[in-house]
Amino acid sequence: MTATTELSGSTARILKDAIRTIPDYPKPGVAFRDITTLLGDAWAFRRAVDELVQPWAGAKIDKVAGIEARGFILGGALAHQLSSGFVPVRKKGKLPHETVRIAYSLEYGLDEMEVHKDAVKPGERVILVDDLIATGGTAEAAVRLLREIGADVLAAVFIIDLPELKGADKIRALGVPVHTLVSFEGH
Amino acid sequence: MTATTELSGSTARILKDAIRTIPDYPKPGVAFRDITTLLGDAWAFRRAVDELVQPWAGAKIDKVAGIEARGFILGGALAHQLSSGFVPVRKKGKLPHETVRIAYSLEYGLDEMEVHKDAVKPGERVILVDDLIATGGTAEAAVRLLREIGADVLAAVFIIDLPELKGADKIRALGVPVHTLVSFEGH
Repeated sequence: MTATTELSGSTARILKDAIRTIPDYPKPGVAFRDITTLLGDAWAFRRAVDELVQPWAGAKIDKVAGIEARGFILGGALAHQLSSGFVPVRKKGKLPHETVRIAYSLEYGLDEMEVHKDAVKPGERVILVDDLIATGGTAEAAVRLLREIGADVLAAVFIIDLPELKGADKIRALGVPVHTLVSFEGH
Repeated sequence: MTATTELSGSTARILKDAIRTIPDYPKPGVAFRDITTLLGDAWAFRRAVDELVQPWAGAKIDKVAGIEARGFILGGALAHQLSSGFVPVRKKGKLPHETVRIAYSLEYGLDEMEVHKDAVKPGERVILVDDLIATGGTAEAAVRLLREIGADVLAAVFIIDLPELKGADKIRALGVPVHTLVSFEGH
């Protein structure tokens, strides 16, 4: 298991080409990486999921935790492929049972996310997934939240890394390996 | 392909038992069916996805469309299993490219949902998925939206049906077969 990797060669090229860039969204100067075009491409979606799952072949994974909302799409596929359960990490106020909540910084202000207190059993082996890691604030909060309910967070995996924003470093500093498939310059 | 089915026997029993009921949520008198316990149970999650996929073995499915947010979890798994693309049907204002939007009724007031205009090509064969069908208002809006961008909606599939609310009838009236796995009395 490598701590961090990025695909090289033709698969990376094809996955990268399947991601649409929307200039000046959500505000001027930002190049938004739109993953919906990759999700909608049967070959690219299947390949991305398979690449994210591949390092865990033969490993026992109890749960895949996905970050709302795009992390749910990948997380459902990963959990099914790994024959593990799925844990939703949700925006506050969306989960119906007893939760643990954490505040985290966004570009402007704070937000909060939650997991059900009983979403993992102590010591369960969990992989965290989202579509993209930028500054890593959301993923860091999710790792802390999962650890608070007893999870052993084995890795955090993403399709897209924006390395200039150093989010992967932030997650590695928590002792959690990071696995991404493609990266883009800028933010 | 049967137009509507429900599992019988031990699989149905186990899936039903894996769903948590939360009394008086989100308001007094409502028994909320909480699917997170099923998602978190590796056996039940895998079995539910496999049962939803099974009727389509050997069929050509171009896209699986999932309704935000719980439909994303199932939709990602279904799309990967069927080697099809995934289309997010999202709450308004969440999709970055050109969209088509539709208003629909909730219990109190209206809401709106969107898909990207280019999310399907004309005539593409699409399966719609969500975790639960109640009155069917959300699913009906999603079917109309997908048809507006040219989709051939082959079926709408759900883990849970609340038959007293007749949502499945509403979808069938649009000419779309409905497939659910388990049902609960009440609403």
